[in-house]
Amino acid sequence: MLEELQAQLKADFNIAFNKPTLLVEAFTQGNYLNEHPHFGGRDYQRLEFLGDSVMQLSTAEYLFKKYPLWDEGRLTELRIAMVQTRSFAYLARELAFDKYILLGHGEELNGARNRDSLLEDVWEAFIGALYLDQGHATVQAFLQQQMFKKIDEGFFDQFIDYKSKLQELLQKRGSVQIKYQKLSETESGTDNSQIFKVAVEVNRQVLAMGSGSSIKNAEKMAARLAYQQLQQK
Amino acid sequence: MLEELQAQLKADFNIAFNKPTLLVEAFTQGNYLNEHPHFGGRDYQRLEFLGDSVMQLSTAEYLFKKYPLWDEGRLTELRIAMVQTRSFAYLARELAFDKYILLGHGEELNGARNRDSLLEDVWEAFIGALYLDQGHATVQAFLQQQMFKKIDEGFFDQFIDYKSKLQELLQKRGSVQIKYQKLSETESGTDNSQIFKVAVEVNRQVLAMGSGSSIKNAEKMAARLAYQQLQQK
Repeated sequence: MLEELQAQLKADFNIAFNKPTLLVEAFTQGNYLNEHPHFGGRDYQRLEFLGDSVMQLSTAEYLFKKYPLWDEGRLTELRIAMVQTRSFAYLARELAFDKYILLGHGEELNGARNRDSLLEDVWEAFIGALYLDQGHATVQAFLQQQMFKKIDEGFFDQFIDYKSKLQELLQKRGSVQIKYQKLSETESGTDNSQIFKVAVEVNRQVLAMGSGSSIKNAEKMAARLAYQQLQQK
Repeated sequence: MLEELQAQLKADFNIAFNKPTLLVEAFTQGNYLNEHPHFGGRDYQRLEFLGDSVMQLSTAEYLFKKYPLWDEGRLTELRIAMVQTRSFAYLARELAFDKYILLGHGEELNGARNRDSLLEDVWEAFIGALYLDQGHATVQAFLQQQMFKKIDEGFFDQFIDYKSKLQELLQKRGSVQIKYQKLSETESGTDNSQIFKVAVEVNRQVLAMGSGSSIKNAEKMAARLAYQQLQQK
């Protein structure tokens, strides 16, 4: 498995590990070692301990520099959305990390290979190994390409509960009535799926409109747009 | 205040900021800015956001390398003891950071200058400023001198609840009866203060002994010694 992963890292990110054993350690789950006593080496947990902090700092530093005008509240909010289980599991799957994990037999039968929590652990362990082997600058470049560029695509918005955030923000400004109003429901031309359009109103004034494949998604989009507009004021 | 702080950093740590405004920002509390509208600049909160993650990674990396044989549980335990409010407040006071803070008038009257939570914030903001201005290696060297060398002196043990940890560890090995037994109470020669000596027993077998200026402190020391002995087995 090692050769394939190394080839992928070289091709996609121009990364070549000096100590490939670090890479193996990052992908080795504890029970695999119990079942293969002659395999040697360690499981990923120490690297995960290190990589967890690397992810925190790399993300904090990136956001700090990218958004010089944001206060610490906004920075923290986006960092929390980025540095969390579902986000790391997505990023790990995108690089097919799941297929490289050396997993115990019992865990395999239990379906652990596709579990978000395992993919999060392995992602952090990989980042810890990359940091030790290649240093901070390479980690930043890797994350820029694999993770940070997704900020501008709005990828991490899905991990923020904008309906709650909008409510909190509006309630700070006094008691308000927030209402989500369905405006329309149309069939998209291509695949017969439906598109819903929703407006979010406060005290009968429209703040923003959103659309989506379900009413819930349309409401989330409307809430996000309203929240972001109000924050800029 | 800036000149004195800069002189101290130069004398004690050979650190000279390239951008002294970063240093000012790290020591400026929000209400001070409200009260001095022509002061310009920012409060410490963005730097605190960054410095919080720098402290996490710097400490994790140091422990990871210093204790190659520790598992992630022990590493995490010591990191939690090191990276927390009381620890940071102590380190900040040791460098007299409290006297440099530009504090709002109301906070001054409320005694905020000597509050652990404010000192923690300013410590993290200072570390964030140092990281931006001087880079990772200088932060590590500064922390080595001011913080990490205290590990071997047992300084951070005070922030670990060893009585609870000992109980957890022993209970993992089956039901046990833990008893703290006072052995003696003597007056120290110099200042008439008392010294207590305590043994911690499990199922009537003495695990370790501790001494201290109170029974509570003697018990904590006994628990720590017992816990550390058991962990090495």
